[in-house]
Amino acid sequence: MTEIVYLPQIKETIKKINLIEIIEEGFVAYSQGKVIVPPVGEMIFENPPGDCHIKYGYIVGDNYYVVKIAQGFYENPKLGLPSTNGLNILFSQKTGEILCILLDEGFLTDIRTAVAGAIAAKYMAPKEINTIGIMGTGMQAKLQLKYLKSVVDCQNAFIWGRSEESLRRYTEEMSDSGYDLQVTQKLQDIPRNCNLIVTCTPSKAPLILAKHVQKGTHITAVGSDTSEKQELEPKILRIADKVIVDSISQAQSRGECYHALQKKEIVKEDLIELGNMILEKTLQRTTEDEITIVDLTGVAVQDLQISKAVYKAVN
Amino acid sequence: MTEIVYLPQIKETIKKINLIEIIEEGFVAYSQGKVIVPPVGEMIFENPPGDCHIKYGYIVGDNYYVVKIAQGFYENPKLGLPSTNGLNILFSQKTGEILCILLDEGFLTDIRTAVAGAIAAKYMAPKEINTIGIMGTGMQAKLQLKYLKSVVDCQNAFIWGRSEESLRRYTEEMSDSGYDLQVTQKLQDIPRNCNLIVTCTPSKAPLILAKHVQKGTHITAVGSDTSEKQELEPKILRIADKVIVDSISQAQSRGECYHALQKKEIVKEDLIELGNMILEKTLQRTTEDEITIVDLTGVAVQDLQISKAVYKAVN
Repeated sequence: MTEIVYLPQIKETIKKINLIEIIEEGFVAYSQGKVIVPPVGEMIFENPPGDCHIKYGYIVGDNYYVVKIAQGFYENPKLGLPSTNGLNILFSQKTGEILCILLDEGFLTDIRTAVAGAIAAKYMAPKEINTIGIMGTGMQAKLQLKYLKSVVDCQNAFIWGRSEESLRRYTEEMSDSGYDLQVTQKLQDIPRNCNLIVTCTPSKAPLILAKHVQKGTHITAVGSDTSEKQELEPKILRIADKVIVDSISQAQSRGECYHALQKKEIVKEDLIELGNMILEKTLQRTTEDEITIVDLTGVAVQDLQISKAVYKAVN
Repeated sequence: MTEIVYLPQIKETIKKINLIEIIEEGFVAYSQGKVIVPPVGEMIFENPPGDCHIKYGYIVGDNYYVVKIAQGFYENPKLGLPSTNGLNILFSQKTGEILCILLDEGFLTDIRTAVAGAIAAKYMAPKEINTIGIMGTGMQAKLQLKYLKSVVDCQNAFIWGRSEESLRRYTEEMSDSGYDLQVTQKLQDIPRNCNLIVTCTPSKAPLILAKHVQKGTHITAVGSDTSEKQELEPKILRIADKVIVDSISQAQSRGECYHALQKKEIVKEDLIELGNMILEKTLQRTTEDEITIVDLTGVAVQDLQISKAVYKAVN
């Protein structure tokens, strides 16, 4: 019998799951070549503008496969509806049975992205973090800070936003986050004051310049998942000691690495895949003054792992 | 709020729908170039053998789009499970909202295929049908005969099957179908005795030979939807006066037309698309002694139309 799980139950359930562990397992399987992720299905609508993406995949020999459907309709807020939505469908890889439909409304995508940010910091952030810098004030900017709590020991966070209003809302909603929050509208305040930075904006031009990045800084770039979006000056990837990506194949066509590869600031051979970094200590941060970058564009194995975990936890 | 509709309700609901009308509308929209059907998504599993196909599409300007997921795991019967399964998900083309999840277990695919067979016969079968011939004894062989009832006036059906046992089961299950049923294991009995024939087998070699096909016969070929499966000798398509296909683009790579095109028995320009035939009387049967073929491989607009109709009928 197919289980239908709605958002409130999903939100309760993920509190009980060790998400870092299960998403790490997914990245490792991915980098070991055990994950099959066929090309993404896409429908683009014009009137009103919208899109639907279908991502699907599985770990060879696992008991499950997953189909995730995510849609974005950017005029929805005018109708009082959220602009993004989605569901995850979990199947048995042994019988094709539809085990579970997770009507998560896009929530699990937000969570698995935030968890990937925490994994990046766990291995790559310096030991002594003075202040965490967050670029952006949206949902992901909140979740990233929240999920960092479990992996880094720092109570100071500096938030950059484009407007006073968005910063005010951010600090209001995050008032019980356990962080001492400072805000700014000056871009350079973040790299000058923070040695663990997470960028989570839809920017199409660099927000952080190489000249502002201090030794010993770690940056996780979350916002860019297309070839158009960009948050870091490409030169930052050249001056970095290590550049980690969740998927080397995706990094060549999207995210910060795409821009840095295009500008020849780096070559493909410089890139280290996240799943390999997790397994290999020498690929992680080894000294306090390294500059390190983790560029995340999102892979279907994250959706697979989080869907499986929710399904198992409700059964 | 997403509506979840299960198989029993779907079975009840489709009894109230004019399926021929809504599927015809779909074929017409398709042939008018109004339907967007991106490439099919596919996952193939090895142990146990299985597959999952994701078909999706929409009519431009319509209120809906659909994603259909269909899976086949051919060792399932050993476990007491059906070998095929599936679901249809209906979304709003205006907001991306998930309107309805139809947990139809593959049933709607069977029905929309049978309805396409009825549409083929409605326009292409001779006026006077002596006996309906059905090649095959599976689910589709039953549904095709059942759905022909609404479009042709003939009570005699001649069923070909590979084994006595499968023919016995067919006649047993179809005892209240309203047809006088005769059975045979001789292939040529069908073309020699029937002038409306539906082929619905998974055969990989021709079951009907050109020399056995009489003037005035109509054949709807339903079984082959891949490049490997084949039910008609390719020469039949050459001697036919009209060859109709549900999709000219698909017919070039699968179904009976694929084989006939490969053998140069016909050329692409000979093919008439079903949606155009519905609109244009001269493309339909015009005399009683024509030989006509309709080759069906299945298009996503059928899934879209039947999903919409069920959703509307339960609301």
